[in-house]
Amino acid sequence: MSATLMNERDLEFMLYELFDSESLIKRQRYQDHDRQTFNEVINTAKAIAEKHFLPIRQKLDTHQPTFDGKNVSLIPELKPAIEAVIASGISSATADYESNGMQLPPIIASAASTYLTAAGGVGLGYNMLTNANANLLEAHGSQALIDKWVKPMRSGRFMGTMAMTEPGSGSGLGDLITKAVRSEDGTYRISGNKIYISGGDHDLSENIVHLVLARVQGAPRGVKGISLFVVPKFLVSDDGIVGEDNEVALAGLFHKMGGRAQTSTALSFGEKHGSVGYLVGEENQGLKYMFHMMNEARIMVGTSGATLAVAGYQYALDYAKNRPQGRLPSCKDPLSPMVNIIEHADVRRMLLAQKAYAEGALSLVLYGSQLSDDEKTAPTIEAREHAQVLLDFLTPIIKTWPSEYGTKANDLAIQVLGGHGYINEHPVELFYRDNRLNAIHEGTTGIQSLDLLTRKVPMHNMIGYLATLDEIYKTIDVAKQCNNLDEFSTQLIEAVNTLKQTTESVLGAMSTRNIDLALANSVKYLELFGHVIVAWLWLKQGIVASQALSKQPHQADEDFYNGKLQALQYFYRFELPDITLWSSILHHTDSTTYDMKVDWF
Amino acid sequence: MSATLMNERDLEFMLYELFDSESLIKRQRYQDHDRQTFNEVINTAKAIAEKHFLPIRQKLDTHQPTFDGKNVSLIPELKPAIEAVIASGISSATADYESNGMQLPPIIASAASTYLTAAGGVGLGYNMLTNANANLLEAHGSQALIDKWVKPMRSGRFMGTMAMTEPGSGSGLGDLITKAVRSEDGTYRISGNKIYISGGDHDLSENIVHLVLARVQGAPRGVKGISLFVVPKFLVSDDGIVGEDNEVALAGLFHKMGGRAQTSTALSFGEKHGSVGYLVGEENQGLKYMFHMMNEARIMVGTSGATLAVAGYQYALDYAKNRPQGRLPSCKDPLSPMVNIIEHADVRRMLLAQKAYAEGALSLVLYGSQLSDDEKTAPTIEAREHAQVLLDFLTPIIKTWPSEYGTKANDLAIQVLGGHGYINEHPVELFYRDNRLNAIHEGTTGIQSLDLLTRKVPMHNMIGYLATLDEIYKTIDVAKQCNNLDEFSTQLIEAVNTLKQTTESVLGAMSTRNIDLALANSVKYLELFGHVIVAWLWLKQGIVASQALSKQPHQADEDFYNGKLQALQYFYRFELPDITLWSSILHHTDSTTYDMKVDWF
Repeated sequence: MSATLMNERDLEFMLYELFDSESLIKRQRYQDHDRQTFNEVINTAKAIAEKHFLPIRQKLDTHQPTFDGKNVSLIPELKPAIEAVIASGISSATADYESNGMQLPPIIASAASTYLTAAGGVGLGYNMLTNANANLLEAHGSQALIDKWVKPMRSGRFMGTMAMTEPGSGSGLGDLITKAVRSEDGTYRISGNKIYISGGDHDLSENIVHLVLARVQGAPRGVKGISLFVVPKFLVSDDGIVGEDNEVALAGLFHKMGGRAQTSTALSFGEKHGSVGYLVGEENQGLKYMFHMMNEARIMVGTSGATLAVAGYQYALDYAKNRPQGRLPSCKDPLSPMVNIIEHADVRRMLLAQKAYAEGALSLVLYGSQLSDDEKTAPTIEAREHAQVLLDFLTPIIKTWPSEYGTKANDLAIQVLGGHGYINEHPVELFYRDNRLNAIHEGTTGIQSLDLLTRKVPMHNMIGYLATLDEIYKTIDVAKQCNNLDEFSTQLIEAVNTLKQTTESVLGAMSTRNIDLALANSVKYLELFGHVIVAWLWLKQGIVASQALSKQPHQADEDFYNGKLQALQYFYRFELPDITLWSSILHHTDSTTYDMKVDWF
Repeated sequence: MSATLMNERDLEFMLYELFDSESLIKRQRYQDHDRQTFNEVINTAKAIAEKHFLPIRQKLDTHQPTFDGKNVSLIPELKPAIEAVIASGISSATADYESNGMQLPPIIASAASTYLTAAGGVGLGYNMLTNANANLLEAHGSQALIDKWVKPMRSGRFMGTMAMTEPGSGSGLGDLITKAVRSEDGTYRISGNKIYISGGDHDLSENIVHLVLARVQGAPRGVKGISLFVVPKFLVSDDGIVGEDNEVALAGLFHKMGGRAQTSTALSFGEKHGSVGYLVGEENQGLKYMFHMMNEARIMVGTSGATLAVAGYQYALDYAKNRPQGRLPSCKDPLSPMVNIIEHADVRRMLLAQKAYAEGALSLVLYGSQLSDDEKTAPTIEAREHAQVLLDFLTPIIKTWPSEYGTKANDLAIQVLGGHGYINEHPVELFYRDNRLNAIHEGTTGIQSLDLLTRKVPMHNMIGYLATLDEIYKTIDVAKQCNNLDEFSTQLIEAVNTLKQTTESVLGAMSTRNIDLALANSVKYLELFGHVIVAWLWLKQGIVASQALSKQPHQADEDFYNGKLQALQYFYRFELPDITLWSSILHHTDSTTYDMKVDWF
């Protein structure tokens, strides 16, 4: 079956109708660009995706990386595919010209990357981590570190990782025990074990640059005593020659449910003399640097969740339009021709739900991309601060909602294909498996919900919370001018009221009651807020569609905009009402889960 | 990690406290049994599960069956494991003594089988299908067919399959085109292609007995012209010698998301001269016979869904009790010891949800097992008919609810383990993948929902529907006598009222409006009914727990019963309220999905 990786018309809608990305070219940083150069980058990404990744998407999954005790091997087709991306410049599209970047707006780079992700770009994770690593070093490392490590990463000679998690402490980074000992030459000797290090070993580059969290001898315990180090797989001389082994040993590969092209490794550092490590920034500030990167990573995770949702939806849609099976209940003649399964109402329900989840999630992550741009390049300081406030606040939602609902969309894609969805001739079960990690890594849904309630909501007199509500009200005011959206703007006003009352109840409980109980249903709060945000973005999409429809567009566009309105209606009628139950649980500080004793299980 | 496959205490509760299985020994068929022999069979199954299946559970998944163009190979450890089950008699535990069975009540056999399923008994699917095949032939085949094919299947020499699905028609059996031509000797020549034939080829037995749906030349089109044939892989002489090839060719193996130990095959029948087929029963009655088997198979699918849910829940529970990570929000000291993750309220929520889904589903499938027994062995004809009415009606729910919510439970088990849940060192992602098929095969959720609304509800003046409501009201009457259950009996009365009003609305729409529209939200009706049924069974469990608690049991039992009450409360407060939205969608005959035009997607 020929695959439609992404919906081009919808990407165009998101970029140029919903978020007005064309206006970005007025900003100095983007003055060399125009809509045409934006589209060229997207088309290049699409072409690389179709030429290099799509043909190996299945093979990347079925031929997992292997470790013979000495070397890790990946399928040979992956390296040229990654090289094609590096050569195109897309992997550092947003970087400055001076760093060999294209100075492209993040929202355009995100849109371009969706094609690569959809085509099996799990293999591209090596690149994405390398970029995140390089970005962090550029922001917080010394010029010497940048010269030595970032340049070869930008050129594709080296690749990078983030080495945080340890076997004994998991998400609880404050409990990590990897040790760093100061050496007389100003470097450190690192020893300890890390797990789940993505891209921790492979045969794709000359060297691997690990960013390792460790605790300098004598440092405070807990999160305040964590430092960040560059620990390369191989030491490199001052003139850039890759030299001897730095005692970074691969203890083993993990075998994952999905995302199999990217190695997940257990690494052992410095078993004999300690691996040589170079301090990034200052001692004991490591977690702060890492969080800088982690916030970016969380947007990337959300983007992956949204993209895989779209890819699964597009695939299931193509399939449903072309697969004849059965007849409608109204058809009394068993000898009449079969209908394509998209004619069955329940298949349409599953497709419409996917559309609502996938395009809702995509609008959210692209909005996040734009905020990450605005906080640096918006025309005024006020606008930059405003964007930063919104992005900080929304990050747990941008990370979680697309991960959770994107995976649900993939689950529905499997169901649309039925038995065919369960086998690897079709990629929907692969999308599901790849996507399932997104609600786990870079902070689980549970962790995001605590971040939202204990940090993001109360932060600076609730500035992020209030700014977000303001944005929603602005949209409602515009929607009120479209008669056909009355049902939805009314419902969104009610939903925001529910959210406000719930927030008040929860914050009240947090200050007056046992805090463990008050936070027991925090995930329901995150779900509630996520649904309101996505409902808001769907209303935004509905406004654009309504306005466009009033201008009597040609048939294909009329269909497209009607589809947007129908997905909006689906979300408001079939999904948004779920918040009633969640808010009621939160409002009453329901103690059912809190009261459950360990011995009762 | 040592694995608790099933919760023994809970199985004991289900069998002897909830369903009073001990009283079955008063029935003549079971007069040789007592609680001790029941438990011996369960313990034997557990021992075989732990000895033969658990050690190969992971290997069965990672080492998929292979096909070298000539032969199919499975891992060698599977055959002795299956043979151990056959030798124990468990695989035909419910059969008559004359058929080498143990005349065990189905509910006991089901309970025993859960251990095998939890331990990786996907490999046992070969046995289960062979039994289903043999049961069908015993019910509908001639004595000659039984002598020739059933006996070697019962002894383990031959295995059996069900060959229904075809590439061109999928679930629409009425459109199948496999051809049968009458031969002068009374046999038929079969030709055509079948897909997704589980166990369609392997190296586990001397012969494979396919039950094939095909259309005799000149038969009516549609479902009324389908006949059923025995088509063996190898022909067998009258004295039982396995002889020449019968033109059943393996076209290929499918590679599935889960359930990988069981081959899923594309078979081609009779490419040259036609495969020899032996008619089962009468011509054109094939679908009726197959449905007889399919109803059994649907209970088995539900049982698999429930069992994998329990297995995943038990594993996640063990893990959460023993994995230290992080601290509670109330803990201000980052240097205090880490807590086990079960102390985190959100982990408890995910465990409690799993308990509510898994034990709710298990009670439902064991209830189904008992009904399938009662319809044959209950003391009075009235009781038998009553059981048959209930089972017929509830089959779509028994099939679907455990499949859908059991898979959700497995998804939560992955999330409890976090990164560890995503790798194959732990079996929870495997349980998820295995379970994901259950909402698809033997009739998808969408198909079950149409069966419920168009056949099961209106059938015989709604006799099944009314009988089911009667059973629920009986339980409510008992619950009203337990003060601590007031909240739940009141809520269930409301839920039943909602169900009744919704049923009225939907049946009204079906008779007065466009039938395709009236049925557009049929899956929501199935979900609504499923939730009411499971809420009812949880209330039943709550009654037993309350009564037991009033007798001041010892500590371990007190904890156990309190856990039951807490899971009941969880289901009523966090899950049952979902029916409000579903019933509203149905009550208003919401046309959102129906109105969505193909071109709008």
